[in-house]
Amino acid sequence: MAMASRICNSVLVTGSNRGIGLELVCQLAGSPSPPTLIFAGCRDPAGPRAQELRVLAQKHKDVITIIQLDTSSPDSISQAAKIVGSKLKDGSLNLIINNAGVNVHLELSNTGDKEMVDTYRTNVVGPMFVAKDFLPYLRMAASQAADQTSMSCRRAAVINVSTLVSSIQKCPETFAMAPMYAYRISKAALNMLTKCLAEDFKKDGILVMAIHPGWVRTDMGGQEVIDSVKGMLKVISSLTEEDSGTLLDWEGNGIPW
Amino acid sequence: MAMASRICNSVLVTGSNRGIGLELVCQLAGSPSPPTLIFAGCRDPAGPRAQELRVLAQKHKDVITIIQLDTSSPDSISQAAKIVGSKLKDGSLNLIINNAGVNVHLELSNTGDKEMVDTYRTNVVGPMFVAKDFLPYLRMAASQAADQTSMSCRRAAVINVSTLVSSIQKCPETFAMAPMYAYRISKAALNMLTKCLAEDFKKDGILVMAIHPGWVRTDMGGQEVIDSVKGMLKVISSLTEEDSGTLLDWEGNGIPW
Ligand SMILES: NC(=O)c1ccc[n+]([C@@H]2O[C@H](COP(=O)([O-])OP(=O)(O)OC[C@H]3O[C@@H](n4cnc5c(N)ncnc54)[C@H](OP(=O)(O)O)[C@@H]3O)[C@@H](O)[C@H]2O)c1
Ligand SMILES: NC(=O)c1ccc[n+]([C@@H]2O[C@H](COP(=O)([O-])OP(=O)(O)OC[C@H]3O[C@@H](n4cnc5c(N)ncnc54)[C@H](OP(=O)(O)O)[C@@H]3O)[C@@H](O)[C@H]2O)c1
Repeated sequence: MAMASRICNSVLVTGSNRGIGLELVCQLAGSPSPPTLIFAGCRDPAGPRAQELRVLAQKHKDVITIIQLDTSSPDSISQAAKIVGSKLKDGSLNLIINNAGVNVHLELSNTGDKEMVDTYRTNVVGPMFVAKDFLPYLRMAASQAADQTSMSCRRAAVINVSTLVSSIQKCPETFAMAPMYAYRISKAALNMLTKCLAEDFKKDGILVMAIHPGWVRTDMGGQEVIDSVKGMLKVISSLTEEDSGTLLDWEGNGIPW
Repeated sequence: MAMASRICNSVLVTGSNRGIGLELVCQLAGSPSPPTLIFAGCRDPAGPRAQELRVLAQKHKDVITIIQLDTSSPDSISQAAKIVGSKLKDGSLNLIINNAGVNVHLELSNTGDKEMVDTYRTNVVGPMFVAKDFLPYLRMAASQAADQTSMSCRRAAVINVSTLVSSIQKCPETFAMAPMYAYRISKAALNMLTKCLAEDFKKDGILVMAIHPGWVRTDMGGQEVIDSVKGMLKVISSLTEEDSGTLLDWEGNGIPW
């Protein structure tokens, strides 16, 4: 069945102008049965860093809509929610992939208040406001879904892109190779956000989980990002109720908090 | 042995003008063999909310020094570190209890950027800068300790006051009774900070852990805060190397991340 292989009807991907986000939009649009609507969030749609995304959107112009969305700005997020809302045919959005994120490669000695707060705003507060401002559309999708009893990304879901180094338990294994405080702390915070949202949105039938994309050399493009995103989309499309509130890697393996 | 029962020679407690922090300073100063130096951090030492602390400090004026320390201000923290440094006889400080913290009882719908960032600054960035700015004194204490091979709060330690609701794993059990996003997310972030510091400071012989004080009606005083702090001090004074990087409750039971 063509419909069964469609990952969802409508999806928003944040930070989609490069790296994993761009590849997510590319693979979603290029799939045999693509979503009807793909909203590609990007903080500077007219700028030079969105060149590849603009070309991709032009190629799939009935499907991809580029949306100005800076995850560090609550105003930008609420504006984006309004614009997306006006473009949704039945007011329903199935899937949000909170992919936009920043990393600062700083150790304790050179991490300042600004790095801590900026990273938190983009990686945690942003995804929280995206979930909050787009909640009416997710609720609509969840209530309109043909199969209203089980959770899935075809019905309504929020996927937060986390990382292996968000795992507090695994910190002793991973700290030495990546002693970046601001990033790790923000992603552990994102995991707690994920778990809170999963509990909060359960009653609405909205699935929420976090995913580790693997180690991807996104600035170089190449094979790795393609495989990572293939894996992520396979995991995302096969999520069920019991995966809500978990942290999985791109192969579907669980990661401890 | 009198010395063996002394929890440590010198200690800093943040947020010590009321609640758990005040009781910590009170029990530390009142113990049979008190620390030689107790630094009582407080953001407004001259204000009305520090009245009880001032009375307590006056009663133990050879031991307690009140220090202006606002954990949401990096400048205040570095100033406090300079002042404490000038008062340390051999430049060594054994124990830091990062107790100061704020909670905003807000759900998703009414949590804004300001609540998220303010809570993060006080509960996470503050403890991080305290650890960073006081690190030279902790290092000195660790290197000067008679028993230089094992970790303990008599040698050098950072204790971060966390909470049961910081546990991502336990969120499904605790969320409904306390759906406060800003607080939970900040305390999960504090747990990651704790684990990073434990890894980072291991080489220096500095123990780092997080503790849940139990549910304490601090605004009402009463029996509970006394018992909670008794338990916390018992746990803190018996910590060993293997407790570094853990989250324990006031009775010494482990809490999963
Ligand atoms: N690459 C890896 O190995 C790896 C591993 C684990 C987890 N992750 C996670 O995967 C996600 C994507 O990472 P990536 O490797 O693709 O990173 P990347 O190549 O650095 O791309 C980051 C993307 O996020 C966007 N972004 C950053 N701040 C933003 C903001 N305030 N508003 C909107 N968009 C913003 C960037 O847009 P601009 O072009 O405007 O900066 C860019 O599109 C991140 O959440 C990251 O933490 C990556
Ligand atoms: N009470 C509980 O049941 C419970 C349970 C779990 C965890 N905890 C944790 O235990 C710790 C102490 O809690 P508590 O119950 O004693 O709270 P509390 O009665 O509200 O006291 C909080 C203390 O932190 C101080 N503080 C807040 N923001 C500060 C800042 N920016 N700089 C310096 N000091 C600041 C307050 O000073 P001001 O007077 O100036 O505001 C006060 O001394 C907190 O970290 C809390 O999260 C408490």
